[in-house]
Amino acid sequence: MIIIMEPDATEEQIQRVADKMENHGFRLVFNRGDVMTVIAAIGDKRLIEPQSIASYEGVREVKLIQEPFKLASRESQKTDSVIDLGRGVKIGNGERPVVMAGPCSVEDNQEGFLRVAHAVKESGAEILRGGAFKPRTSPYEFQGLEEEGLKYLAQAREETGLLIVTEVMDSVDVEMVADYADIVQIGARNMQNFKLLKAVGKIDKPVLLKRGPSATIREFLLAAEHIMYAGNRNVILCERGIKGFDSTYARNTLDIAAVPIIRKYSHLPVIIDPSHATGRRYLVAPMAKAGLIAGAHGLMIEVHHDPDKAYSDGAQSLTIEQYQKVMKEINELIDKFIIPTSK
Amino acid sequence: MIIIMEPDATEEQIQRVADKMENHGFRLVFNRGDVMTVIAAIGDKRLIEPQSIASYEGVREVKLIQEPFKLASRESQKTDSVIDLGRGVKIGNGERPVVMAGPCSVEDNQEGFLRVAHAVKESGAEILRGGAFKPRTSPYEFQGLEEEGLKYLAQAREETGLLIVTEVMDSVDVEMVADYADIVQIGARNMQNFKLLKAVGKIDKPVLLKRGPSATIREFLLAAEHIMYAGNRNVILCERGIKGFDSTYARNTLDIAAVPIIRKYSHLPVIIDPSHATGRRYLVAPMAKAGLIAGAHGLMIEVHHDPDKAYSDGAQSLTIEQYQKVMKEINELIDKFIIPTSK
Amino acid sequence: MIIIMEPDATEEQIQRVADKMENHGFRLVFNRGDVMTVIAAIGDKRLIEPQSIASYEGVREVKLIQEPFKLASRESQKTDSVIDLGRGVKIGNGERPVVMAGPCSVEDNQEGFLRVAHAVKESGAEILRGGAFKPRTSPYEFQGLEEEGLKYLAQAREETGLLIVTEVMDSVDVEMVADYADIVQIGARNMQNFKLLKAVGKIDKPVLLKRGPSATIREFLLAAEHIMYAGNRNVILCERGIKGFDSTYARNTLDIAAVPIIRKYSHLPVIIDPSHATGRRYLVAPMAKAGLIAGAHGLMIEVHHDPDKAYSDGAQSLTIEQYQKVMKEINELIDKFIIPTSK
Amino acid sequence: MIIIMEPDATEEQIQRVADKMENHGFRLVFNRGDVMTVIAAIGDKRLIEPQSIASYEGVREVKLIQEPFKLASRESQKTDSVIDLGRGVKIGNGERPVVMAGPCSVEDNQEGFLRVAHAVKESGAEILRGGAFKPRTSPYEFQGLEEEGLKYLAQAREETGLLIVTEVMDSVDVEMVADYADIVQIGARNMQNFKLLKAVGKIDKPVLLKRGPSATIREFLLAAEHIMYAGNRNVILCERGIKGFDSTYARNTLDIAAVPIIRKYSHLPVIIDPSHATGRRYLVAPMAKAGLIAGAHGLMIEVHHDPDKAYSDGAQSLTIEQYQKVMKEINELIDKFIIPTSK
Repeated sequence: MIIIMEPDATEEQIQRVADKMENHGFRLVFNRGDVMTVIAAIGDKRLIEPQSIASYEGVREVKLIQEPFKLASRESQKTDSVIDLGRGVKIGNGERPVVMAGPCSVEDNQEGFLRVAHAVKESGAEILRGGAFKPRTSPYEFQGLEEEGLKYLAQAREETGLLIVTEVMDSVDVEMVADYADIVQIGARNMQNFKLLKAVGKIDKPVLLKRGPSATIREFLLAAEHIMYAGNRNVILCERGIKGFDSTYARNTLDIAAVPIIRKYSHLPVIIDPSHATGRRYLVAPMAKAGLIAGAHGLMIEVHHDPDKAYSDGAQSLTIEQYQKVMKEINELIDKFIIPTSK
Repeated sequence: MIIIMEPDATEEQIQRVADKMENHGFRLVFNRGDVMTVIAAIGDKRLIEPQSIASYEGVREVKLIQEPFKLASRESQKTDSVIDLGRGVKIGNGERPVVMAGPCSVEDNQEGFLRVAHAVKESGAEILRGGAFKPRTSPYEFQGLEEEGLKYLAQAREETGLLIVTEVMDSVDVEMVADYADIVQIGARNMQNFKLLKAVGKIDKPVLLKRGPSATIREFLLAAEHIMYAGNRNVILCERGIKGFDSTYARNTLDIAAVPIIRKYSHLPVIIDPSHATGRRYLVAPMAKAGLIAGAHGLMIEVHHDPDKAYSDGAQSLTIEQYQKVMKEINELIDKFIIPTSK
Repeated sequence: MIIIMEPDATEEQIQRVADKMENHGFRLVFNRGDVMTVIAAIGDKRLIEPQSIASYEGVREVKLIQEPFKLASRESQKTDSVIDLGRGVKIGNGERPVVMAGPCSVEDNQEGFLRVAHAVKESGAEILRGGAFKPRTSPYEFQGLEEEGLKYLAQAREETGLLIVTEVMDSVDVEMVADYADIVQIGARNMQNFKLLKAVGKIDKPVLLKRGPSATIREFLLAAEHIMYAGNRNVILCERGIKGFDSTYARNTLDIAAVPIIRKYSHLPVIIDPSHATGRRYLVAPMAKAGLIAGAHGLMIEVHHDPDKAYSDGAQSLTIEQYQKVMKEINELIDKFIIPTSK
Repeated sequence: MIIIMEPDATEEQIQRVADKMENHGFRLVFNRGDVMTVIAAIGDKRLIEPQSIASYEGVREVKLIQEPFKLASRESQKTDSVIDLGRGVKIGNGERPVVMAGPCSVEDNQEGFLRVAHAVKESGAEILRGGAFKPRTSPYEFQGLEEEGLKYLAQAREETGLLIVTEVMDSVDVEMVADYADIVQIGARNMQNFKLLKAVGKIDKPVLLKRGPSATIREFLLAAEHIMYAGNRNVILCERGIKGFDSTYARNTLDIAAVPIIRKYSHLPVIIDPSHATGRRYLVAPMAKAGLIAGAHGLMIEVHHDPDKAYSDGAQSLTIEQYQKVMKEINELIDKFIIPTSK
């Protein structure tokens, strides 16, 4: 920790800060410059809150040197995490990128849903997505089929052999969702629902954690840290677009650079969701490919048997035919370029 | 709803959209221009999701005419809501602005907490704040005293006669928190935790809803709508700073214009939290006064008996002496200018 | 400057950085921690670019300790700058806040313009604003009357005794504009037009510098530094709204906290433009008052004799009657609260 | 144009709006709903400013239907623009992506610069970049060699056969820069320097227009429209990162989705600058490849013979060796995937 004192800080103020730090076991090095004094404090920063130092009179600023996340950090684990999702599917560096596809929400029309599930299977994707619990901005919109939706998912898994990923929105539902799902998803709007993070930290299923729309990468990795600290090391990160100043042509800004950044600072696998990020069908294929080539370990894509009748997010869902075309492009990229060059 | 077709939309595509809208009971007016066709659809937009129309082939864009929130809207209720908080304290237009003050979190040192509570009472503030459940970005930081903290709050209320506002983070804790608190707070990071919004929509205590750091005003009012739709009409909104591109000198950007905007579009009371918004002590007084003069119905301010030792957010907490000075300025502004000119 | 080395930086890499810094006259203090080495370099940071150090192999990050602006900084000048604008009008701490008002652009209708000028004079404002050169997002919009507009401004000054502020957009026009104007304005979109900053740095008229819509406060003060470094110390800063993620209800986010922040870090006067910031008439009065109470040294307000017919920005312009009402509120706030409490 | 009236708009207010629109030659269609009246106005929106309508009493909102740019729009020109840059190099759909590479600024060390130029040539890139006029946030940083730098560029062209792209910052320098350069660049901070846009609109060299850090895509295309409207149709757009809320790990957010969006709405070629966007060497290769696969028609990459000694932006510049490695990856992607699949 670097503590920068104000130019007019008194000797007494400097001493007060020094005492506090030493009491917490830090070793101090003083740099007394012409303009101001800077104290470098070497020790375990988790023993003290930087803000509590920043509040001392005479302190201008406190700067961190180490990242505040630990279990999720590349420093604590040099090798990439590869997570076993079941049925032979693995996600992480060295594995073929994993595709999760399906409708935004599981709906009444079970036959249509199964049609999508079979198309997902045939396209070479490994995981079926579909929301049974749906976070909706407005209370007047479809909120999901809840447990009935989970049953539809389970049945689709049985019929197709796909794995299942679905969202949980509340800590009370974690056990139930984990009973049905192979991967439990935390939605973007719950990325800092810490009670929920703690709850999924106690299950033995992998967790797909979506980045909050205004979360910094550090906050995102700290949310993963909450889950890992509670006991579950199998966290998959998902970049799904951040809020920007321009939502005229795309809903959010897909932050593709987050992929190589996360891969540098963390050992966890990271995927891209081009459907929610852009909210536009024609952007799904180029953004999916851009994400993969930037190093993403997988994709999450929306497809619906009849997007015009979808209860949610129809505008960004591909039809089955469009999905098949997009998957052909994606598989071509993976087979011809990503796998050969990653060797 | 205004449906704008692509310039090259076919007659068949236009007809398909028209059929869907008419099936949902909308009355249509067609504008066939030189460049493109525009369909104005008059009806209850809650019967159809705009996005499901936007996904039709040949549709360029769907624009809403009416705001999607209803119970929270000025259109549904012309007169300002004035909420009775208990013990004779009311919040809303025409009432003296209400001040909620106290430490960020309730801590072990009960004696220090009571010292703050008495200072809050003496300053003329009506409500004591203090977190028993603390949402923390990092799992290594203090997470709150939980029920023990609620007991400290209740005792402070008994000793001082102040009302109590405190945060609830999880739907399972709503009943317990509502038993202790006079006002139940939803934190900014839970603004779109819809299960929690629904849960506080079923209690009979007023809810203080904080704006999410990247929530638009529309999303903010829709979050209030979730609570109101579940049954609880007593929602107080709190602007506490939004994420911006510059966090060097202040943590967030306090969006003071949100106050007059919300007052135009909604009948709900709205307050300002200058402490969390700025994260800097010297900005609390100017931002508090700016918020009040822009029309805020109240303030939330952090004060701690010993900020240097605070478990959380010490840097933005005022000392008791600083708080007393700030409150003197605030009361002067209210007495000399806000109350006289609001008559 | 604080140079933080990577945890795995080699001794050779550390030495290379040290050599470079010492060659530039810096005195170094080494902190060798368990995790990484941190070098504190004391010296004149203007002698070396931090980025050139950041690019060395083995360097994780370079952190500045001192602000990069100097002439504009509070450290270089403790007392507030008070700028003499002519005709007895001064702007800065201790002076009555100055109001600049007038139409967005000077238009053909000279009679209407003079009507506004007289209303501005009668309201107690000191300065008439009006654009002769207009930066317009689209080439199909009115671009200003150019020199003819400057003549209209000069004539209005003669008739009313008001001072004149108007924008210059190109370095070639600086002399001409400075001949007519009492204050030369740099628009938000030109805040980093460095050739233009340099050009106005060489005139002897005060400069009103508007903050760019995505400029950090540091970049804003560095833009002022460009002008001051070129020779002109009379810079007035103007906060006029920054770009945010929500432009539904207001064009930009007025960053009122920038006022007390700038006053802490700089000695230059700072004003608020609530008209451009919000783009909505009903927000002008509350935001103007909020800015003043937060410490602004002045205001810039748009008023037009017939906003429905304005060539630009009609939606945010007040009518003369609305303006008179807003000015009554503003003068009341200044007389009853701001002047008494600032003593 | 869609004009949405307030729910309580009077018949007289509606009539006033209607009169104004009809006077400007618009044909009107009225939708009188239960809640409010909506007027659809069919006509040439360039004849009236939407904001001037928005300012009428009783008007809630004015929504545009057509994009405000015309010459730059896909509607005005269906086929992609392919721009001839000279020496047989073309940029645009169907052509091999063009690479522009070189140091951020042209510096004193001419020998080093020529070394870079030869490396650029050998890598297969077609264009040499290098700034002779440098926009710098601080006045204390290197501002460029000006005309001397242009001469160095010209000499490097002579020696290598590469084309030259370099920035012009002020309208007075446009002719001189155009004399030396093959492509004239407008920097991000000058994207809305309309006098400069107009000036480069009058030369016969192609213009590379960089997106402003907070410019929406619409504003970006309108800036191109300024150049085209002034007479120069050869505009190349460059996405170089937008300002976001997280600059910890990358300087800006590279908005890769802007590439397919621009390609949908405009016929102009668009390239990506991963060096300025990210400010980090290790992000250049993944972001360059992601941009290409999303459809970019070219790249701009920084390379320096000795980044540690660069006068500007060293941290993001590749060494010659790193550049060669990155170009190998890029050429492999182009040859193996982009060219084969674009057929």
